[in-house]
Amino acid sequence: MKSKRLLIKNGLLITANHNMDVFRGDLLIEGGRIASLAPRIDDPEAEIVYADELLIVPGFVQTHVHLAQTLFRNSAEDLSLLGWLEKKIWPGEASHTPESLRLSAQLSIAEFFRSGTTTIMDIGIVKHAAVLFEVIAETGMRAISGKMLMDYGDGPEALIESGDAALQESIDLLEKWHGYDNGRIHYAFAPRFVLSCSEYLLKEIGLLAKKYGVGIHSHASENKSEVALVEERFKMSNIQVFEHLGLTEAPLRLAHCIWTDENDRRLMRANDIKVLHCPSANLKLGSGIAPIPDYLERGINVSLGADGAPCNNNLSIFTEMRLAALIQKGLHGPESMPAPTVFRLATIDGARALGLDEQIGSLEVGKKADLVFIKRNQVHSIPDENIYAKLIFSTNEADVLHVMVDGRWVMKERELLTINEEELVSKIKL
Amino acid sequence: MKSKRLLIKNGLLITANHNMDVFRGDLLIEGGRIASLAPRIDDPEAEIVYADELLIVPGFVQTHVHLAQTLFRNSAEDLSLLGWLEKKIWPGEASHTPESLRLSAQLSIAEFFRSGTTTIMDIGIVKHAAVLFEVIAETGMRAISGKMLMDYGDGPEALIESGDAALQESIDLLEKWHGYDNGRIHYAFAPRFVLSCSEYLLKEIGLLAKKYGVGIHSHASENKSEVALVEERFKMSNIQVFEHLGLTEAPLRLAHCIWTDENDRRLMRANDIKVLHCPSANLKLGSGIAPIPDYLERGINVSLGADGAPCNNNLSIFTEMRLAALIQKGLHGPESMPAPTVFRLATIDGARALGLDEQIGSLEVGKKADLVFIKRNQVHSIPDENIYAKLIFSTNEADVLHVMVDGRWVMKERELLTINEEELVSKIKL
Repeated sequence: MKSKRLLIKNGLLITANHNMDVFRGDLLIEGGRIASLAPRIDDPEAEIVYADELLIVPGFVQTHVHLAQTLFRNSAEDLSLLGWLEKKIWPGEASHTPESLRLSAQLSIAEFFRSGTTTIMDIGIVKHAAVLFEVIAETGMRAISGKMLMDYGDGPEALIESGDAALQESIDLLEKWHGYDNGRIHYAFAPRFVLSCSEYLLKEIGLLAKKYGVGIHSHASENKSEVALVEERFKMSNIQVFEHLGLTEAPLRLAHCIWTDENDRRLMRANDIKVLHCPSANLKLGSGIAPIPDYLERGINVSLGADGAPCNNNLSIFTEMRLAALIQKGLHGPESMPAPTVFRLATIDGARALGLDEQIGSLEVGKKADLVFIKRNQVHSIPDENIYAKLIFSTNEADVLHVMVDGRWVMKERELLTINEEELVSKIKL
Repeated sequence: MKSKRLLIKNGLLITANHNMDVFRGDLLIEGGRIASLAPRIDDPEAEIVYADELLIVPGFVQTHVHLAQTLFRNSAEDLSLLGWLEKKIWPGEASHTPESLRLSAQLSIAEFFRSGTTTIMDIGIVKHAAVLFEVIAETGMRAISGKMLMDYGDGPEALIESGDAALQESIDLLEKWHGYDNGRIHYAFAPRFVLSCSEYLLKEIGLLAKKYGVGIHSHASENKSEVALVEERFKMSNIQVFEHLGLTEAPLRLAHCIWTDENDRRLMRANDIKVLHCPSANLKLGSGIAPIPDYLERGINVSLGADGAPCNNNLSIFTEMRLAALIQKGLHGPESMPAPTVFRLATIDGARALGLDEQIGSLEVGKKADLVFIKRNQVHSIPDENIYAKLIFSTNEADVLHVMVDGRWVMKERELLTINEEELVSKIKL
């Protein structure tokens, strides 16, 4: 596919470019990248895909996910964060074998592709993290992942490691996978959260991320009890801890950021900390509602993620987009989170959170061909005078027809091409 | 179909009966009703439908919808209730022809069936309300509807009628449609809301509903500005107005009920007022979040509805169930709205709201065969140790495979059998 040209004809192109251009037209792909897009392109030698009844959008970006947890879907209900971790999630993660972890990652990516997500940032797992990279490589997903780091606190014995050994394992994975397949896979250091890390480990992570030129991915200020424990241990807030220990020297991406104060928000803006917003998970665990309109007004970059399947319980970007809009409208009024803003959070702003906004996140010449083709004329989504309202509020994951990453089809006519879905389901269903 | 027996074999039956029984088994249908259900039923003469990989649930009940508004989907964004009505919805409703209204109702019911809703209570329209009943009759939907009543206030001229003429038209429709097709269709009086009705009209509605033994369906306490206007006009609350003018003498079903005080809630309980909860619409219009856990604790009956497509923007019960759970968990903690409770709101409690709980809302012998068959083994919804978590949080509308109302298939293998979907879409798409 990469060696020849593919011409997409007559789709409705939702570009997510700077001007938010939307137009009916053609899009030419060559060498895995968008070679041109225009109302009409003629190329007699290109293979043609007709898209008359389709919307074409940039592949969706989810900046906070847990591949390792998908196998625990529908098994951890009605719990708050810390109880949920201690009773269900930590024991589950500790019990993973390479085989069960492989299934969990495959199941996740199958669902991501089927719902139009082409790029993820995954926060990894303590043990067997190499398996996650292998599955990402095999399936064609664009991803950042990293070994999860825990060397302190209340986690189960099997998850608490020596900091130095864990860092060495991280570096080995980084050296093997960072930049793999022409930059499709990247590495990020992944301390679980402040409460599961020693000061020594956190400091070293900051130094290593800077040295290797990679980002850091963690959780922060998700839950009031967590925030209180951090304050008790450090006499400062989550955000202050990250800054104080030097982790803001590298690109720092923090999931949740619900319970932040004015000082935290100034630090977030000053250090360009990326907020990874997970609205379903935040509601389901009773954590709260992040102050997203305030972050956006301050110029803090916000993007979206489904978080883990056991606190969602699905991984669809459509669910997260809809909820990200609705919860703010309900609290702050109907103008507080317009559909086009939410569409940007799930595309170009997600790409920016990962440092990939020159590569993906919008339909523009030179960008990688990560594309999602969406059925337009469904009884549940017509009419569609406002195309962003359609995408955010009326479209669902089953409307996704084809998906392409790096110019390669990963789903065509809703059939996954890099994962054997039938075999996968047969291994997991109860 | 009604004259012979149909045997559903080996499905996972989610009964929503008093004990919330869930078991793998068979279900026999005869004369449009559930004749038996048991782990194993043998009936060599019955036609058999195999359901090995399917969940079978009672047809979902949505107690507050607007068939007339579906054609205005994706056209009224970022507005609060009163501006949304004045700028978009009232002009739209006033402009309906019988033909456009027919399309709107067909589009609604196509979407309801495709997402597993088999019973609706629709709040009608001022003009051409007979068209709604005709479409309901033709499509096989189980429904309560009524001519919408407006004789007062700020609505456009075309929607404000003489009270007596409007009541006579209501009675004519009631006499024609109430009880149609063996009770599949019922009538309810439908005053839009207190602000669009004279005291005279409201009082007469109460008297007529009592006289004819039918219910009343209205909106109340959705928005703070609306509540303030009611207080200004009547020197009492919405709920008090309904009670004071005698509308609680008939079964009274009120959409929204977000902004109620202690006295209102006591009146609601004392008069068995049914709350029709519309979480998506309440958030999207910036109205607020209804105090549902408090209502449930008081023994007030709560059920769910998608409301109108222009304030949602879809009509899926799965969207409403998920949101009904999540918004309460986010505000009141993860235990505040368990999945089985939400499943009841969308099935048996919806039936109770409509006075139909002896007929529908659960899988029990003697009840009408309103059934929904849901694909179980999808990558986005496995594993499923907790089957209610699966239904509320992981399942989506596209997982609905077959739908039956009154023992008659209205959708089989996702093909609608009473609506020509292709023709319908071709008339509506832009």
